[in-house]
Amino acid sequence: MPEAPYNARVRNCTVNLRVPDELDIIARIARAVPSHTSPVLPLTIGDDAALLRPPRGKQWVLTCDAFVENVHFLARVHPAEAVGYKALARAVSDLAAMGATPRVFLLTLGLPADRTGAWLNRFLRGLARAARAFDLVLAGGDTFRSTAVFVSVTAIGDIVGGYAVKRSGARPGDRIYLSGIAGAAELGLQLILRGLARSRSWKTLLRPHLFPVPRLKLGSWLAKHRLASAMLDTSDGLSTDLDRLCRASGTGARIFAALLPAVKVPGELRRRGFDPLQLALHGAEDYELLFTVPRKRVHKLPARFGGVPLTCIGEITEPPQLLLVGENGAVQPLQPAGWDHFRSKPAQTRKPGSLP
Amino acid sequence: MPEAPYNARVRNCTVNLRVPDELDIIARIARAVPSHTSPVLPLTIGDDAALLRPPRGKQWVLTCDAFVENVHFLARVHPAEAVGYKALARAVSDLAAMGATPRVFLLTLGLPADRTGAWLNRFLRGLARAARAFDLVLAGGDTFRSTAVFVSVTAIGDIVGGYAVKRSGARPGDRIYLSGIAGAAELGLQLILRGLARSRSWKTLLRPHLFPVPRLKLGSWLAKHRLASAMLDTSDGLSTDLDRLCRASGTGARIFAALLPAVKVPGELRRRGFDPLQLALHGAEDYELLFTVPRKRVHKLPARFGGVPLTCIGEITEPPQLLLVGENGAVQPLQPAGWDHFRSKPAQTRKPGSLP
Repeated sequence: MPEAPYNARVRNCTVNLRVPDELDIIARIARAVPSHTSPVLPLTIGDDAALLRPPRGKQWVLTCDAFVENVHFLARVHPAEAVGYKALARAVSDLAAMGATPRVFLLTLGLPADRTGAWLNRFLRGLARAARAFDLVLAGGDTFRSTAVFVSVTAIGDIVGGYAVKRSGARPGDRIYLSGIAGAAELGLQLILRGLARSRSWKTLLRPHLFPVPRLKLGSWLAKHRLASAMLDTSDGLSTDLDRLCRASGTGARIFAALLPAVKVPGELRRRGFDPLQLALHGAEDYELLFTVPRKRVHKLPARFGGVPLTCIGEITEPPQLLLVGENGAVQPLQPAGWDHFRSKPAQTRKPGSLP
Repeated sequence: MPEAPYNARVRNCTVNLRVPDELDIIARIARAVPSHTSPVLPLTIGDDAALLRPPRGKQWVLTCDAFVENVHFLARVHPAEAVGYKALARAVSDLAAMGATPRVFLLTLGLPADRTGAWLNRFLRGLARAARAFDLVLAGGDTFRSTAVFVSVTAIGDIVGGYAVKRSGARPGDRIYLSGIAGAAELGLQLILRGLARSRSWKTLLRPHLFPVPRLKLGSWLAKHRLASAMLDTSDGLSTDLDRLCRASGTGARIFAALLPAVKVPGELRRRGFDPLQLALHGAEDYELLFTVPRKRVHKLPARFGGVPLTCIGEITEPPQLLLVGENGAVQPLQPAGWDHFRSKPAQTRKPGSLP
């Protein structure tokens, strides 16, 4: 059996002369990313599996999220720091959408040999920044060599038993709310994909795409006060995510173009075809919270929460259709035209190119 | 923004005319793989995240494991059923190595468009078979389109607080045990890679590679009776995994070639160069348990457990080296020559080609 490892034979990338071994990579991850024992986590990384000790009266909330080169990001245009940050932010946003508080995460990381050096260090810097920002501790993981960067994060949080906000609780008459701004992440992505990202005046427009902020405190507050009857995060676009919420709840929805907190688009970019309404309706990866509130409880909701605007954009209806009321009052069906990984043709409405 | 979805633009695979959408794929996963609510799992798949209600006095045990085309398996030679089965079996083996009982799993699944049909159905059949065999319920997941099949499983089990068996508990004088047969999975892999798998008389030799059996009951029994002082599963090869156990424990080890429960190799295959000792020492993916037992407790260990032989193969030593005592009594250093994903050159000793 004198064959070379299979992995080396199928690979066509140039192999560095000094590729670190697996133990070295795991040691670098452990140094870069917070991982320490606690009452919740009695064992840190390095064993077969992680241990998790449940706090009293709490339920665990689990989610996994993949972040893959050429599918979800492009190494050529996306900084490694943003890739590391976002891998975690995306997963944590799912916890926010349940109202949970993040605790630990598991990291599965596939790397080409030529990304095990400086690229990995920058990636880990972004990951560590997100872990600190969201108060997450690394509990374990898996590493392997692959032809493109492959990241999968399992994020685990907790919440008081019975308080998690599902997608299925919306009822006709409930008001529909959206946190923050809609379409800002898609605008940033499009600027990058079209090579417009270098213009200095537009640099700040990239931030919502590169470093989105999951609405953890808002999600947890809405759950704790039982204000949200249904909730999810806008990862695949408002139209698609609203459709999901309505399907899970067995309802429809009517939203108003005039109410949408659409991203502000500079005049020059509008002239290049960037349309705030289309971005707001179908742009992916905002990671804002889309939630419904029973009419009687709407008065308990502040206009802003921790500086983030909470905007009523419409209401839940009984007939299971999505309707968009235009600025002129005309009503038209709203097609879910956000992101679907397996959809082979563009949706009926105009769909922005996206990499969710 | 009339661009095609980015995903479609970077892809060079042939796109089927009728590719199912993401909701359809999720629905098929839900139909094929066990997922039902229970006191432990109050919410099934389809929401932002899964909920997990902890049983009293138990700790959770978490592990994640990637299984990627062209890295861990080859679609051209590995049946889709085996890919589905093994994706779960590998992760569950990590739970066995802690002594935990499997409960739920999360599935991250990246698929090329041309694998969303019959291939996916067969994959799900294998996955479901493993889920039933190991008593696991699907709790959530993530799907996306990719150029090669990408699977990542997060498996979650539980164990009575304080009973999990770590890698770090081995002490000098402890006896080293191995369950089952060593090198059988590597023999199966090599037969497949060399095109020898079609010979009818060798068909049964493929089974340990295609459908390995994680030692869940043994792991749980060893933990419950506090017999194992340290334990892991042999996923990357006995020499590499023993090295890991010893590094974690701060010890060395001496093992005896004459004691190794090496795979039986038919005469014709021996003549083709298949060597039982090399397969047993360095062959990957057996998913047997490698554990240490304090000398005074060795008499409590049966010779077989549930039909699986438990073999003493050596002892833990104080000096931190791995030594191999040959059949002739000659002692030589044992190089960890099993699988390391990032090692660029073959190890010093002969290394079987492997796809762990």
